[in-house]
This record gives sequence, C-alpha cells and structure tokens, in this order.
Amino acid sequence: MKNILDFETVTLIDDDDAIEIIDQTLLPGRIELIRLHSAKEIWDAIYLLQVRGAPAIGVTAGMGLYLLMKHSEAGSYEEFMKELREKSEYLNSSRPTAVNLSWALKRMETHVDKCYREYSHNSDAEVKDLGDGSDKGTFTDTGSVNSESGKIQKSPGLNKWEGLRMVLTDAMRDECQKIKDEDIDVCRRIGEHGLTLIKDGYGLLTHCNAGQLATCKYGTATAPMYLAHEKGMKIRVYCDETRPLLQGARLTAFELHSAGIDTTLLCDNMSASLMKSGAINAIFVGCDRVAANGDAANKIGTSVVAIVAKRYNIPFYVCAPTSTIDINTPRGDDINIEQRKAEEVTEMWYKERMAPEKVKVYNPAFDVTDSELITGIVTEYGVLRAPYTEAIKQLFDEKKR
Amino acid sequence: MKNILDFETVTLIDDDDAIEIIDQTLLPGRIELIRLHSAKEIWDAIYLLQVRGAPAIGVTAGMGLYLLMKHSEAGSYEEFMKELREKSEYLNSSRPTAVNLSWALKRMETHVDKCYREYSHNSDAEVKDLGDGSDKGTFTDTGSVNSESGKIQKSPGLNKWEGLRMVLTDAMRDECQKIKDEDIDVCRRIGEHGLTLIKDGYGLLTHCNAGQLATCKYGTATAPMYLAHEKGMKIRVYCDETRPLLQGARLTAFELHSAGIDTTLLCDNMSASLMKSGAINAIFVGCDRVAANGDAANKIGTSVVAIVAKRYNIPFYVCAPTSTIDINTPRGDDINIEQRKAEEVTEMWYKERMAPEKVKVYNPAFDVTDSELITGIVTEYGVLRAPYTEAIKQLFDEKKR
Repeated sequence: MKNILDFETVTLIDDDDAIEIIDQTLLPGRIELIRLHSAKEIWDAIYLLQVRGAPAIGVTAGMGLYLLMKHSEAGSYEEFMKELREKSEYLNSSRPTAVNLSWALKRMETHVDKCYREYSHNSDAEVKDLGDGSDKGTFTDTGSVNSESGKIQKSPGLNKWEGLRMVLTDAMRDECQKIKDEDIDVCRRIGEHGLTLIKDGYGLLTHCNAGQLATCKYGTATAPMYLAHEKGMKIRVYCDETRPLLQGARLTAFELHSAGIDTTLLCDNMSASLMKSGAINAIFVGCDRVAANGDAANKIGTSVVAIVAKRYNIPFYVCAPTSTIDINTPRGDDINIEQRKAEEVTEMWYKERMAPEKVKVYNPAFDVTDSELITGIVTEYGVLRAPYTEAIKQLFDEKKR
Repeated sequence: MKNILDFETVTLIDDDDAIEIIDQTLLPGRIELIRLHSAKEIWDAIYLLQVRGAPAIGVTAGMGLYLLMKHSEAGSYEEFMKELREKSEYLNSSRPTAVNLSWALKRMETHVDKCYREYSHNSDAEVKDLGDGSDKGTFTDTGSVNSESGKIQKSPGLNKWEGLRMVLTDAMRDECQKIKDEDIDVCRRIGEHGLTLIKDGYGLLTHCNAGQLATCKYGTATAPMYLAHEKGMKIRVYCDETRPLLQGARLTAFELHSAGIDTTLLCDNMSASLMKSGAINAIFVGCDRVAANGDAANKIGTSVVAIVAKRYNIPFYVCAPTSTIDINTPRGDDINIEQRKAEEVTEMWYKERMAPEKVKVYNPAFDVTDSELITGIVTEYGVLRAPYTEAIKQLFDEKKR
C-alpha cells in the first residue's frame, strides 16, 4: 500500500492542465489520485468531499479558477473578467459555507484586477521576464483605460491582448501557488509553536481531521504531532473517530498511522474513560472559526472533549491560523451552526439503515467551545492565552502594523 | 410494520416447549421472533446478542434451564441435579460477565434444591394441588435423605421419582416466571419513582438501551418515560446512538418511537451542543453495576454525558434495580472494565472497513460515572440521594429487616 503522506493533498500537474487530488471519499480503503480538468469536475470534487478541509478547498478553488481561465478564449480584459467572475461564482456554489472557498476565489479575482491595473498604469513599460524564463513578448500598448471604472475603452490589438492574457494567467498561477505555499508555511509555524507544548512520551488526543489531508502539508492540529515525530520524540496519538462522517477514523488515524506515529482510534464517547485513565497529556484540535472573545467553533463533539478535559485538568489547545479568527464575530453564540441531513447519522457508511424510519435526528455539523475551556490558541504567530479578547485584539493590532 | 412493544422481549410459548424472543440483532430493520428449543439455541441467542440486557438475559437463562430440565430423563434426583448443573454451567458460559445470567441460573438451582428439601422433609405429606389444576398424582415416599449432604441414599421408585420430577420442573417454571414478574414489577416501580422527577414538557436524554428490550417490560431508564407518556404528559426523548454497538439508535430510539413518544436521535458527540441549547431538562440512564459509594458503571460514554450534564446543571439520574447495587464493591475503580474487540469500532455495521489496517483501537465496554456527578439513583424502593454510601447502606439495612 502506498503511503498517504507521499502524495500532495492538492497539486497542479500535467503542465498546469489539471489539478491532482487524493479522492478522500475512498480513504482509508483506497488511495486514489484523481485529476480535475473541467469546471464541473472541480465543482463535484468539492461538493462530494473528494477534497475537504477549509485550507485544501481554498487551494483547490484557487487552482481551479487559474486552470479554467488559462483556457479562456476571451477577446478582451472585460470579457476575461466577466468569464472569471462567472466561473468563480460557479465554483463558490459547491460548498457555500466554507469560508476559505470564497476567500480564495475572491483573492484570485482581486489579484488579477491588481495586476491588470499595475500593468495598465505602466502601459509604456516593457514587460519584463515573467519569472519562468519564457518569452511572452513585449507589449507597448494596452489601450487607454478609464481609471475610474477600470473598463477598457479601446481594446488592444489581439496580439497585445493575448500577451496581457498570458500575464494575467501567469499571475493567477503565481497567486494560487502562493495560497498553497502560505498554507504550508502557516501550518509549519503552528506546528513549531504547538511543539513547545509537547514533551517526550506525551499522549495526545485529537478530534476530527485537522490534518495534512485538510491542508497542503502538516495540518493544523496535527502539525505539532508531525514535528514532534520528525524530531524523534515518542508520542502516542489518540483519534476520536468523529461521528457521523468518521473523519477521525478514516483520515486522521490513517495519515498519522501512515507516518509511523503510535496511533489509537476510539469512539467519541470513550474520551472520559481514556482521560480518566491518565493516557492523555494534552489535546490539540483544529477549528473552523474563532470569535473575537476566543470561543471556537469546530467539528461537532469538540466542546464535549473540552468539557471532559477540563474535568481531568488536561490542557486543551485549539490550533487556528489567524485567517480563521473572525474579529467581526463577538462571541461563539453569534456563529451560525449548520444542521446537516439525517441520513448522515442513520444510513451513511452502513450496510442497512441503523435507526427507526422517520425518527427525528439532531445533526449539527459544529459546536462551539467556550473560551474558558481553552488552555491556548495556537496560531502561526504564537500561542494565545486568556484573556482571549485582549490577546486576539493585540495580535490583530500588531498584524496591521 | 408491527409495533415492537406488542411483543414480549422473552416469553415461554408452545405449552412451555420453547422460549420466544425478539431477535435484537435484526432491529430496527426487521422485527423477527425466534423460538429457542435446544441448549445450543439458547446459548447462541445470548452469545450472539439476539437477546441482551442484563435482566432479559437472566430471564432467558432461567426459562432456558427450566425448558431443558423439563425434558430431563434423569432417573433420580441426584442425576437430575447433576444434569441441571451441567446445563446451567453451559448456559452460563454464553456471556460470563453478565451478572444476571449467573444470578438467575443460581437462583433456579437453589430453588429446586429448596423445593426438594421441603418435599423430602414432608415425605408423608400428600402432594397438594400443584397450582395449575392438573393432577400430578399423590406421592408418599421420596426415599430417605442424608440431610447433611442432601444426597439421596435410596432412590424412590420410578413412578414416585417421575412425580417428584414433575414437582421440581413445575417449581422451576414458577421460579423463572417469578424472575420475570419481579423484573416487570421492579421496572414499573423504578418508573413510578422516576416519574416524580419529570414535568410535563420535559426534554429527556438517555444513553444506550436500558429500555423494554433490555428487560421484560418498561425498561429501567425508559420506565419513567413510558409512564409519563401513558399519563399523557408531553415529553421529548433524545437518544444517544451509543457507539460502537448503536443500541441507542437501533433499540432505544426504535422502541420509544414505536410507543409514539417524540423521539430524536443524536450522535454521542452532540450531547454538549444539545444540552447547551436548553433542550434537555433531565437525563436518565441505566447501569450495570453500582458500587457501595454510588459510583456507577454503565455503557461506555455514560460518564461523558454526566460530565457534560454537570457543566450545564442538568440533573443526571441513574436507574438501578437494587440487584445491580453491589455493596461488596467499595468504589467504581474496583469495577473491572471489559475491553472489547477492535472490529466493533472499525468494521461492524459498515459496508467496508472505516479505519486504517492494523491501527490500535481503544474499546472499553463500560465506563464509571463518579457518584458526585449523579443527582439521584432511582431504585424500586425510591430515589437515593448523596451521600450515597450512607443512602445505600440504609437501603440494604432496611431490606434485611
């Protein structure tokens, strides 16, 4: 069996003609790489959870938009942007609640617009080496621009537009690659800060998958574990299976076990028994959104782990790229929690239905962990400690400088 | 679809020629009654969890022993008891950790022995009407007995032994029926005491199946719910699915929904979200063993529910027939917890394996809820309150009187 960690979660291949992803719906039974070419294929891959995890979805969407626009036959910048926005909207509809999806698509669009403006304002400039050594030609006229509306009043000649188009698609390529590189960098830095909280011989618990499979490398909650393992520290990691979608069993246990880390799977309801036994020294979880007061929304069941950890005095850490901290959301209660369909609980994965017909089902996708239960929030800039309102404000003030 | 509550969990049928049970391994997909005749069939039914729940297993074993001995061809009391002990041992091996199983079998044996002694000490007595109106004949000589060893020194004549054998098997019939009747009575009384803790409109949470399917009627944790529903009170019951064996989804949600109670299913890790939402007013769970200090061992995950309930100030009640209170076990830590096989977590119920090959699995069958988390222990004699060591001691002292 191939090792899951030998493959990238999301990558451009075939001279940027396709996105290659691990089909996560087939894990852990089969590692199968699939190639996405068309808009429909990319949309389906996100919708069907073949690629999942907010950072990984963002990268897929960004790369997808680049790949689709690379084949654009638009005759002008205006047409190009119209097409880009249509394709962006389409991809964004695949999972409307995933913040990173719309964020990455918006970032791509903004970047294209920025490049175009820079290029336009410098219309006499010779286009320099475009970074990949290829000669994209020299353009001296891109048409006059109405700087208020950004609209081109006079289109450049076809050859000139062709050149601009290439500049823009190259810029898109760089940007989606940058989103990916930044994700890897952020995860690695979270791992380094998290590593300061781990000692040799520690037993660690995690919930759901905030692992490499949810990001481009390292993961968030798993990053300290991978770094500890790389350093030769002996750690034991316990993975909640995480009903109903079993991301802990299917993905986290799988990737950690593949990495050679001492991995144990448990059902979500076994956490108290395990923590009481003394096997757990610290808990690391990911998060979907952190409110300005430090309340953290994450996969359903996370707050159960936090409450039980509190009882047994086990430190509970939330690993959060600052991109997931939402200073516009004052408290956890302000986070809207998605209710998902009953069949995920009653039928999914099973040989036959495991509940009475027509019974009601409570199936929220996330819960909110109160900040008072959180020992520390591990960001790429360091470990935040309570009081979180102040710590988060300070972090964002420093970032602005 | 037939209503599950129209059927008895365990009953003697066909003129006491078979035990009829609901095959619980097929629930909730199919309600299928199966008839057990042979020792092997009874053993398999218990081993394969076709019948489960400590009280229901006890009744099945008691009825099974009666049924098997009814066909005994023993030529003497000595042979009869030898055969009874062999069959009892065999049935007892089906699930060695279920206390009620060995308890019921031992009770049957003791009762036979007692009847024999009474009968023997009154060897001149005419055997009266045997209670069912049938004429079993009159016996005036049962042979002389060594009252120290209880062994028969001189066997009675065949006809006389035949008559005694019928007396003993009839006594067995009465005793196993009595075990069943007592179970129903105890559950009903637990229900009545539990009912005093419920108000109209309450939302109740339960874990695993301490329902009618685990007993002969009412269940333990569900008894207050059935009685509240019978009285026309509007209650909502939330059932933890209870991984890995899904007794909450397959059995509890099924039987409560069948009874017309407003029933909602949830995954075990959703309890904090649900309790925080304010939907739950009280929690009722069953138990496998209560220690002398009130610590209660019950299905894995019960203590998670208790810890979360404590955080949200929701009363947590353990429903426990006094037969499950073990005054010889000082504290919960003294209760040995069975670890079960990994496949229950990784493979059972699924279309395909849901975890990496060879990953370690933590799968304890039970956990212990610390007595300080328990608001009350609901027994057939009333609701015990902290301090439990004193309350339990007092209850047992009163029972002795």
